[in-house]
Amino acid sequence: MNIVLSRDSQVRIMENTVANAEKYFGQFCTLMASYARKTAKLRDKSDLLVKQLIDYANTENPELRSTMKNFAEELAKVQDYRQAEVERLETKVVEPLKRYGIQLKQTQAEIKRFNKVRNNEIKQLEKLERLRQKSPSDRHTLSQAESNVHKASVDASRTTQQLEETIDEFQKQKLKDVQKIFSDFVTIEMVFHAKALEVYSSAFQNLDDYDFERDMEDFRARVHIASGNYDARPVSATNPSSALPWSASSQSVRSTLQRQEDSEEDSDENVLQDFSNPEYAQIRR
Amino acid sequence: MNIVLSRDSQVRIMENTVANAEKYFGQFCTLMASYARKTAKLRDKSDLLVKQLIDYANTENPELRSTMKNFAEELAKVQDYRQAEVERLETKVVEPLKRYGIQLKQTQAEIKRFNKVRNNEIKQLEKLERLRQKSPSDRHTLSQAESNVHKASVDASRTTQQLEETIDEFQKQKLKDVQKIFSDFVTIEMVFHAKALEVYSSAFQNLDDYDFERDMEDFRARVHIASGNYDARPVSATNPSSALPWSASSQSVRSTLQRQEDSEEDSDENVLQDFSNPEYAQIRR
Repeated sequence: MNIVLSRDSQVRIMENTVANAEKYFGQFCTLMASYARKTAKLRDKSDLLVKQLIDYANTENPELRSTMKNFAEELAKVQDYRQAEVERLETKVVEPLKRYGIQLKQTQAEIKRFNKVRNNEIKQLEKLERLRQKSPSDRHTLSQAESNVHKASVDASRTTQQLEETIDEFQKQKLKDVQKIFSDFVTIEMVFHAKALEVYSSAFQNLDDYDFERDMEDFRARVHIASGNYDARPVSATNPSSALPWSASSQSVRSTLQRQEDSEEDSDENVLQDFSNPEYAQIRR
Repeated sequence: MNIVLSRDSQVRIMENTVANAEKYFGQFCTLMASYARKTAKLRDKSDLLVKQLIDYANTENPELRSTMKNFAEELAKVQDYRQAEVERLETKVVEPLKRYGIQLKQTQAEIKRFNKVRNNEIKQLEKLERLRQKSPSDRHTLSQAESNVHKASVDASRTTQQLEETIDEFQKQKLKDVQKIFSDFVTIEMVFHAKALEVYSSAFQNLDDYDFERDMEDFRARVHIASGNYDARPVSATNPSSALPWSASSQSVRSTLQRQEDSEEDSDENVLQDFSNPEYAQIRR
């Protein structure tokens, strides 16, 4: 195998190695960055859920209120761990992959530099060839051209050696980095899953401890206090004027009715905002 | 406390209870559905990563190829568990929350029905009041109106009782469902995190076992075979015609150069596709 062709084949291996790394590491970088962003979106959605759980807790009786608040806090903790996961993915996975972009550019520049030196060798060889055909007897010019070819060949050989070292170092670093980056990814994910499992175990216990009977007692008491002792039912139609004080004020009856209509309107609005919003309609299909 | 006002206060507690459930359960439904969708998007992104890892593995030397394929398979397993998580979230969290929408509508219809009966009682009372002022001596008509008020009051009382039972059942079911739905959510999450932890532990071990020295040997052998034994370096400028066969064909030199340019162009295209795409540019900022 001759030198220039073998160098050509070698340089193609190098170019392919770098181009391949560029292609896949670029994609890994994009995908990992995207994975981190999707994780951040899941965190955002969970944060909203935490907020709604706390709002809801505040509208409920003490037992459920405390259960829901506790659950919201545990859910918030998981989001803190998710946030740490996102940050770690960015610094230990996405950033190193990005640095690859820079390293690749340097290696590509070295390959280009080598190709320039190698092209010079070919140019000198072509020049020598032309001289041989045009003026085969011009000893002086031929000798000069041969000397140029020699110089260009020495340069090309030296650059080839340098490039070989560069590509060897590049490949070594790449393999180590592949292992490191994906091991870091796995470690980050393991830490997150372990922490989430721990927090959810505690959240489960807390939900399991919820005593709904106590809340029902509170609720029943509230409804019965509001309803007064109507079970005694002093039906008063036989003597309405004494038992039914609205006779003194039909205004108060009207305002009661008015309020009732308002409250029905509010209720309808809630339907529109919540159970009838497009997102809800979408998931119902 | 008189009956109609106390009923009014009671009905407001019921309306508020239902309206509150409607508001928060609607939001929980929307957020949980959204949480499931974001999780599905994370799964999709991971699936793409799995695909790219396999593609990349196929371009590498045997040792890294096997390590990367194994890692891709483990990552794919996590996505299968994530898919199961999404499906469970939909059936055990989103669906029950949706069913709430239907249950709430039924309870609201009952409250409306009660209000209609109660409004009839008020209407009869107002009618009686008007009669008393217009024709206080019309015994027969007054007696008829009093009888209507009595009937309307009995209806209202009966409906109040029914409604109280309905709302009691509604509240009981709601509290149980809150506990069940969020416990199911936590269980689904726990199962997923436990499985993911298990799979990633195995993936970590696999990455840790990767022997990069063996791949380096393969790579070096490949580069050296391609370069031939140029270390012996028979620099041939002194007798180029015998050692350098392109003198016979400058065409082959040109085609070599042409291919080189093509390869450089490909390489630039890769930069555009991968490390220079907008997404990449974005994360680099």
